[in-house]
Amino acid sequence: MIIVLKPDATESQLKHIVSKVKSLGLKPMISRGLERTIIGVIGEEDLLRVQPLDVFPGVEKVMPVLAPYKLVSREFKPADTVVDINGIKVGGNRVVVMAGPCAVENFDLLYSIARSVKKGGAVILRGGAFKPRTSPYSFQGLGEEGLKFLVEVRKRTGLPIATELMDIRDLDMVERHADVIQIGARNMQNFDLLKEVGRSKKPVLLKRGMASTIKDWLLSAEYILQNGNFNVILCERGIRTFETETRFTQDLSCIPIIKSLSHLPIVVDPSHAAGRWGLVPSMAKAAVAAGADGLLIEVHSKPEEALCDGPQAMLPEKFSKLMQELRRIARAIGREL
Amino acid sequence: MIIVLKPDATESQLKHIVSKVKSLGLKPMISRGLERTIIGVIGEEDLLRVQPLDVFPGVEKVMPVLAPYKLVSREFKPADTVVDINGIKVGGNRVVVMAGPCAVENFDLLYSIARSVKKGGAVILRGGAFKPRTSPYSFQGLGEEGLKFLVEVRKRTGLPIATELMDIRDLDMVERHADVIQIGARNMQNFDLLKEVGRSKKPVLLKRGMASTIKDWLLSAEYILQNGNFNVILCERGIRTFETETRFTQDLSCIPIIKSLSHLPIVVDPSHAAGRWGLVPSMAKAAVAAGADGLLIEVHSKPEEALCDGPQAMLPEKFSKLMQELRRIARAIGREL
Amino acid sequence: MIIVLKPDATESQLKHIVSKVKSLGLKPMISRGLERTIIGVIGEEDLLRVQPLDVFPGVEKVMPVLAPYKLVSREFKPADTVVDINGIKVGGNRVVVMAGPCAVENFDLLYSIARSVKKGGAVILRGGAFKPRTSPYSFQGLGEEGLKFLVEVRKRTGLPIATELMDIRDLDMVERHADVIQIGARNMQNFDLLKEVGRSKKPVLLKRGMASTIKDWLLSAEYILQNGNFNVILCERGIRTFETETRFTQDLSCIPIIKSLSHLPIVVDPSHAAGRWGLVPSMAKAAVAAGADGLLIEVHSKPEEALCDGPQAMLPEKFSKLMQELRRIARAIGREL
Amino acid sequence: MIIVLKPDATESQLKHIVSKVKSLGLKPMISRGLERTIIGVIGEEDLLRVQPLDVFPGVEKVMPVLAPYKLVSREFKPADTVVDINGIKVGGNRVVVMAGPCAVENFDLLYSIARSVKKGGAVILRGGAFKPRTSPYSFQGLGEEGLKFLVEVRKRTGLPIATELMDIRDLDMVERHADVIQIGARNMQNFDLLKEVGRSKKPVLLKRGMASTIKDWLLSAEYILQNGNFNVILCERGIRTFETETRFTQDLSCIPIIKSLSHLPIVVDPSHAAGRWGLVPSMAKAAVAAGADGLLIEVHSKPEEALCDGPQAMLPEKFSKLMQELRRIARAIGREL
Repeated sequence: MIIVLKPDATESQLKHIVSKVKSLGLKPMISRGLERTIIGVIGEEDLLRVQPLDVFPGVEKVMPVLAPYKLVSREFKPADTVVDINGIKVGGNRVVVMAGPCAVENFDLLYSIARSVKKGGAVILRGGAFKPRTSPYSFQGLGEEGLKFLVEVRKRTGLPIATELMDIRDLDMVERHADVIQIGARNMQNFDLLKEVGRSKKPVLLKRGMASTIKDWLLSAEYILQNGNFNVILCERGIRTFETETRFTQDLSCIPIIKSLSHLPIVVDPSHAAGRWGLVPSMAKAAVAAGADGLLIEVHSKPEEALCDGPQAMLPEKFSKLMQELRRIARAIGREL
Repeated sequence: MIIVLKPDATESQLKHIVSKVKSLGLKPMISRGLERTIIGVIGEEDLLRVQPLDVFPGVEKVMPVLAPYKLVSREFKPADTVVDINGIKVGGNRVVVMAGPCAVENFDLLYSIARSVKKGGAVILRGGAFKPRTSPYSFQGLGEEGLKFLVEVRKRTGLPIATELMDIRDLDMVERHADVIQIGARNMQNFDLLKEVGRSKKPVLLKRGMASTIKDWLLSAEYILQNGNFNVILCERGIRTFETETRFTQDLSCIPIIKSLSHLPIVVDPSHAAGRWGLVPSMAKAAVAAGADGLLIEVHSKPEEALCDGPQAMLPEKFSKLMQELRRIARAIGREL
Repeated sequence: MIIVLKPDATESQLKHIVSKVKSLGLKPMISRGLERTIIGVIGEEDLLRVQPLDVFPGVEKVMPVLAPYKLVSREFKPADTVVDINGIKVGGNRVVVMAGPCAVENFDLLYSIARSVKKGGAVILRGGAFKPRTSPYSFQGLGEEGLKFLVEVRKRTGLPIATELMDIRDLDMVERHADVIQIGARNMQNFDLLKEVGRSKKPVLLKRGMASTIKDWLLSAEYILQNGNFNVILCERGIRTFETETRFTQDLSCIPIIKSLSHLPIVVDPSHAAGRWGLVPSMAKAAVAAGADGLLIEVHSKPEEALCDGPQAMLPEKFSKLMQELRRIARAIGREL
Repeated sequence: MIIVLKPDATESQLKHIVSKVKSLGLKPMISRGLERTIIGVIGEEDLLRVQPLDVFPGVEKVMPVLAPYKLVSREFKPADTVVDINGIKVGGNRVVVMAGPCAVENFDLLYSIARSVKKGGAVILRGGAFKPRTSPYSFQGLGEEGLKFLVEVRKRTGLPIATELMDIRDLDMVERHADVIQIGARNMQNFDLLKEVGRSKKPVLLKRGMASTIKDWLLSAEYILQNGNFNVILCERGIRTFETETRFTQDLSCIPIIKSLSHLPIVVDPSHAAGRWGLVPSMAKAAVAAGADGLLIEVHSKPEEALCDGPQAMLPEKFSKLMQELRRIARAIGREL
């Protein structure tokens, strides 16, 4: 950690800071420049990470040298993490496509969509039983009944199921039924929920918060790993910007950044970012080309009647066509799909 | 609701949409312009609010005419809502100042800060027992013990207490002890939590999410009102922007906007927005001048030793001086403080 | 255009608006809903586009039905525009790669880089003689001398040259020497400059402003077309967001959006968006997969000594390797490169 | 400057960097921590400011210790700069209000508005002869004729005039007529224009770009000072964020930040930030309370017929009422208006 002093910091302020640093078991190294005095602070990483030294009189700013996270970092674990979902491996050479409706609406529809996406090449079924909706007047999901439909469809199709957990009180139920527990963008900093899924053994799909920096996101993942669950898949789903043509702005540059900072796999959800199905093919192809380990795509056979996010759902036949294109892109970069 | 058709929409697409609109019990009004055909849709507000008509073939865009919220709107309730917190009225002529430490750290410190802020003129004590921290390595709060300290300090000082609820499982405990239940920015779209505090009778302080539009924020408040609790206070605490000199960008223009759209009171938290105590006085004065109904200010007597957000806490003497300035501003605009 | 009245708008306010609309030669169509009265305004597109009707008493909001631009729109010109740069076609099936140093620094270096990028497969040479630098203390470019170096290198390599015009007074000089006139992100709303390059016949590469919506960007292009120059290439180079891991956030979703709204070709500059060469390959591949018509990539043989943006420049050998990957991606989506 | 090495940086990479630092006439100080080696670089500020050392192999990041600007900094000039505009002092104890129409439309209207705002208490007349409009179909200003109207109105009312310069070719004309040369938000990084007004003696009002950080803004001001003109007034006019209820988000926290970083005066334009006159009073009062040295307010006597930005213009009577409130706020914080 580097402490930069104000140009007019006094010697007694300097001494005060130095003695504080020493009292924490850390080692201060003073360096007097022409314009500023700086103090390098050396010591155990864990100690350094939590000291709020910028509050001391005479301090202009404190610049951390180390990343604030540890277990999620590639420095801590150089090899890629591969998350196993009932035999489907996320983070390996194969690009994994998870598809399905935004919300589980009824059994027949879910089953029909599941068969379509399986036929198209999806290997995991997504579908929400609990739905975080901006408006209380929107469809809030079928709840436990939706979970049961998912389980029955898994039984019939063999597709593992990914579904969102919103309420910490539903953890046992969701954990029992789902193969992947999804934490939505709006709960990315629901820290109690993160701690609880950290105590689970189930793979967790952690969506990026719409206003979360990559650092915030990795710190949220750190909550899960620190509680014992290393089976975390990161999912980029768009960040909030000034642009209004899309619901969110898909930040694909986070893919190579995450790959360099962390060992965790990263997948991309183009449907929620774009908010319109017409943009999904371009962004799905771009995500694969950029190195994403997987995709989360909304598919609905009757978008006109969808109770949730119809405008962003692809028709099954469009999805199948996209999958063929994605396969060609994956091959072009030396991966499978 | 207005449906704008694409320039090349066919007559059969138009008929399909019209019949769908009618089947919903709504009335379509077709208007053919030189460049576009548009369909005005008339009917019950509640029906209109939830129809996703933009998914139909031939539709270019759908433009809602009505706001998506109802109970929070000034149209629904023209008179200002005044929330009563143990006799302290938020939303009336008096500007209400809530102050205290970011986190409850120990009893003596809390009691000492509480006496200071009371002396300075604060009428509600703020302090977190449960702390939402970006990093798992940061101090996470004292939990129930912290609540007990707050209760004891209330007993001794008479100050009502405002404290954050993070985990839905702690609702009963927090509800029993606190006078105001704070929902933090990171939980503004934790909809299950919103529904539960909506079933409470306790006043709720709903912080704006860091990436939430005013519309999103009002919809989150709508969740609380719709479940029966009309005692909601909105709290602006900065939004995320590209500027890095402050932790967040304080959006004071939301004050007159909220006043025009909603009947709910609005207070401002300059401490979390700025992230540095040196900016708090200017922003607190600006908030009062802009018409805020109250302020939430962090005060700490030993910021160097604070376990949470030390850099943004004001010293008690600086807080007292600020209160005098705030009183003059309040008077200048015809209010008290 | 749709005018939505306030719920409490009076009949006389309605009459006042209707008479104003009629006096403009437009036709008002009144529709009274249960909650709101709305006025549809029908007439000539050009008349509608400029009327500020939201200022009238009783008006809640005005919702435009038509896009604010015309000549750049796909409605106006359904077929893709292909811009010809000395025989190189941008906007056709071939993905066009423009590469070179950020700034022209000296002849030998420029010539050497030009030969490298040509060998790697670039078909246009980029390089700045006039450099818009955030700081006055940074290298400001060689000016006319830099242009001469570019011309000489074109003569020797055959590569057409793209270079930035900053100062309207340099237009003649730049127009005389360059094959593509680049308008930088910081000048995207320098409207006098846009008008002047609109009077030129040279192809214009219009970079997106860092805070420009797609609509703003298309309106800036409209300035150029409206002055007679239809040879416009749009260039996405990242927008400003809260994320600090990259200099800007590359918004690849603008590619399918631009393709649907406009007939103009669109290329992507991953170097300026990322600000770090390590991210460029992923984003270049993603851009091609998303459907970009070309790329603008910074290459420098001695980035350690670069006078401008060294950290984002690729080494020639890395660039050549990337080109091979890009070729495979282009082929996978049915294009050449 | 601090250079942080990667954890796996080699000794030869370290030596390479050290020798580069020395060759620049700077002094490297190596400090080996448990997790990272860092190199503090000491030397002349001007040398340090421009070295791009992050391009070297083995470097993880470079953290600047000093601000990138110099002449605008309070360190360079501790005393407040007071800009004199025909005797009106901006940056002193008096809060200076500049008011007038967005655009000069015709003489009579301008003269009438000028008399109104003077009566209300404005001391400088604002009005655009050259108008930067997002759309080429919007009114582009009267040009030189508009300047002449401004001059004539100044003659009759005694109010100094502030007007925008867009095109560098108009500098002589604008310089000859105006008392304050305004550089608009869209030209804040038109560096050639900045250099030219830096060579002028006239006061310059430099608006903040809509995507400009405070650092970018100060660097743009640095361009002007560095060319010899220290008469610069900064003007906050809103930044671009995700919020759509306002045209831009007014960032009032920049006022105390600018006051701490720089000696230059800062004024606020609430009209362009809000985009709606109804929000202007709250934000004007907030700006004064936050410590702004002045305000720029749009006033129009017939907003329904305004050719530019009618919705954000206040009626003269509303402006006069606001001025009375502003005077009370100014007095409450010990200033005049």
